[in-house]
Amino acid sequence: METARLETFADGVFAIAATLLIIDVHADAEGGRLAHALLHAWPQYAAYAVSFLTIGVVWVNHHTVLRQIGLADRTFLFLNVLLLMDVAFVPFPTRLAAEHFNDPGARAAAVTYGVTMTLMAMLWAAVWFYAAIGRRLIDPKAGQRVVSGISRSYVPGTAMYGLATVVAVWSPDTALVLYGAIAVFYVLESSIFGRG
Amino acid sequence: METARLETFADGVFAIAATLLIIDVHADAEGGRLAHALLHAWPQYAAYAVSFLTIGVVWVNHHTVLRQIGLADRTFLFLNVLLLMDVAFVPFPTRLAAEHFNDPGARAAAVTYGVTMTLMAMLWAAVWFYAAIGRRLIDPKAGQRVVSGISRSYVPGTAMYGLATVVAVWSPDTALVLYGAIAVFYVLESSIFGRG
Amino acid sequence: METARLETFADGVFAIAATLLIIDVHADAEGGRLAHALLHAWPQYAAYAVSFLTIGVVWVNHHTVLRQIGLADRTFLFLNVLLLMDVAFVPFPTRLAAEHFNDPGARAAAVTYGVTMTLMAMLWAAVWFYAAIGRRLIDPKAGQRVVSGISRSYVPGTAMYGLATVVAVWSPDTALVLYGAIAVFYVLESSIFGRG
Amino acid sequence: METARLETFADGVFAIAATLLIIDVHADAEGGRLAHALLHAWPQYAAYAVSFLTIGVVWVNHHTVLRQIGLADRTFLFLNVLLLMDVAFVPFPTRLAAEHFNDPGARAAAVTYGVTMTLMAMLWAAVWFYAAIGRRLIDPKAGQRVVSGISRSYVPGTAMYGLATVVAVWSPDTALVLYGAIAVFYVLESSIFGRG
Repeated sequence: METARLETFADGVFAIAATLLIIDVHADAEGGRLAHALLHAWPQYAAYAVSFLTIGVVWVNHHTVLRQIGLADRTFLFLNVLLLMDVAFVPFPTRLAAEHFNDPGARAAAVTYGVTMTLMAMLWAAVWFYAAIGRRLIDPKAGQRVVSGISRSYVPGTAMYGLATVVAVWSPDTALVLYGAIAVFYVLESSIFGRG
Repeated sequence: METARLETFADGVFAIAATLLIIDVHADAEGGRLAHALLHAWPQYAAYAVSFLTIGVVWVNHHTVLRQIGLADRTFLFLNVLLLMDVAFVPFPTRLAAEHFNDPGARAAAVTYGVTMTLMAMLWAAVWFYAAIGRRLIDPKAGQRVVSGISRSYVPGTAMYGLATVVAVWSPDTALVLYGAIAVFYVLESSIFGRG
Repeated sequence: METARLETFADGVFAIAATLLIIDVHADAEGGRLAHALLHAWPQYAAYAVSFLTIGVVWVNHHTVLRQIGLADRTFLFLNVLLLMDVAFVPFPTRLAAEHFNDPGARAAAVTYGVTMTLMAMLWAAVWFYAAIGRRLIDPKAGQRVVSGISRSYVPGTAMYGLATVVAVWSPDTALVLYGAIAVFYVLESSIFGRG
Repeated sequence: METARLETFADGVFAIAATLLIIDVHADAEGGRLAHALLHAWPQYAAYAVSFLTIGVVWVNHHTVLRQIGLADRTFLFLNVLLLMDVAFVPFPTRLAAEHFNDPGARAAAVTYGVTMTLMAMLWAAVWFYAAIGRRLIDPKAGQRVVSGISRSYVPGTAMYGLATVVAVWSPDTALVLYGAIAVFYVLESSIFGRG
């Protein structure tokens, strides 16, 4: 099977999951208090930006990965469906994190966000290593150096997000900084991905 | 007519219907009670996962079916629109099932879910057999063995979902297990689909 | 300019507008009353089906039209944006029609639906005749008989929806039947479209 | 990297952001008061139309820009993700503008809309000049006259939207007219874009 429709479906889920995030941004106030409410809604803007960028990173990386794939099989498609199921879940913990930023629910929200991202790292690894081990689905034209680079970059993801999630139990604020840092790490990680 | 735009439209509906499911996942609670509320929201996560996976299965199978199609005609497009209308309806019974999991509405919710899925199985059969009988729209390059395999796999769908819906009148819980089992059946059914 | 991205964007809007319709389907009730509430929600299912099918018809016809187009220009793109703006508006009058089916608001809802559809017929005519007059954007390979057939089919649309809208002022119920009949007319109108 | 998936993802975000705008259009009223409520909801229709058309303009221009691009690199993709993040934000200030059109919140709403659009103009310039300076990513076949024309048209955008935002602090109504005028300017600006 070719990967064209996987790309269409995946890009649709990425685009929708990212765009739906705006539904949860709101500032309800009487007219005279609106400016004040808008300024105090900044955790919502931050949550929107972090989640949109995270989904954007996932999209760019999905792009990079699929360029190495020659043919998809049924198992590969279903692993991708699982990955997309987790990506489409991101608006939920994002909303929690924005709503409970400043109250005792911050811990539960940060843990939920971390569990979602840890699961995403695991599913990314499953998608990639299913395709890459023994070059099962790798395009014969894809260079082994790029393939190995992608493999190396996926090894630490689960551990990094898992640790940040554990940190969230003690300090939700620290965890949020860590989640942002991991996202930036995957943006900058062009020494591995970018050389494709 | 070629099938390219049908694929784009269908993949859009699949992606949106699946991604919209997250809008109905929520855990509203005072901050201090959030962890508790999140744990008790598990029927929502289960409903999200079952429906996302079901739509994912439908997408993979639509992929498989369209690969056998040479040219689409207007009737085929409208049958697909009817199928997609039912797919896009899935978020509604999903929301009902999650909300009424533990109250007297469980029966009505499980029946609604079952009717939606039985109708989907019927529309799948209509889409497929309209194209396959006499190989009306089948690509000349598609092997008869694959075509017959797909035909065989669509015969029991309506009956299986219909029976599970009847079961839901007596035992909503059993029906939910059956719905999950049928979805898994169609995932595993690669002896028929997968040999394409 | 080629029409590929217009198709992607348009198919996205069609798919989303159609799929978003399900957000407005709901049956809120205590568990024990759910079955009753679900049965009484039938105007919502009818509104969902009529609007989904209407958007499906629009999608199939957009498909048919774009197959005759060779190259798009900027004006053609903007006329399409206006058409899509109206297509994406359909969920609003649909929601009104479902909610006010049985109360004194039915007239205002039916008129709003009719105005939306009349405007859509006008924008369809604008999109098509801009491309077709003097074969400005028509693909040289498109047969004149198909082009003339499409032209003929777009002439009565505005008048038919306009008249149905006027009828809605006196009898909202009659108007709803007329809206459905016009949609069916465009489905069946294959003697003109279908012979492409 | 090729730009095909960037187009799919971007078209998805454009289509969804535009189509989601309808969710915020509503007219809640008792049946007998519905006609009145629908007439008084006109700021919502105006906000819907302005935002849909603005996103439509952005889509057409994205189309025009990407036709000049030969190959994308990772930085270009991430600049596009930032641009899309801002495009997907548009429904939020649109909703604010429609809700607070006639109350003391109009100023804060108009400023929020202006900040969003000013940021969009800056991100457009970043996307374009990153690709165009030294023709870094420009397709060798793209004419220098078209490239220079696009460059010239992006220079004033930030200043125009920035000024309109400053005006919004004193006169929200004037600012809304200016926002509309800038959108029309970019529609009509075919002496630069259109000659591609």
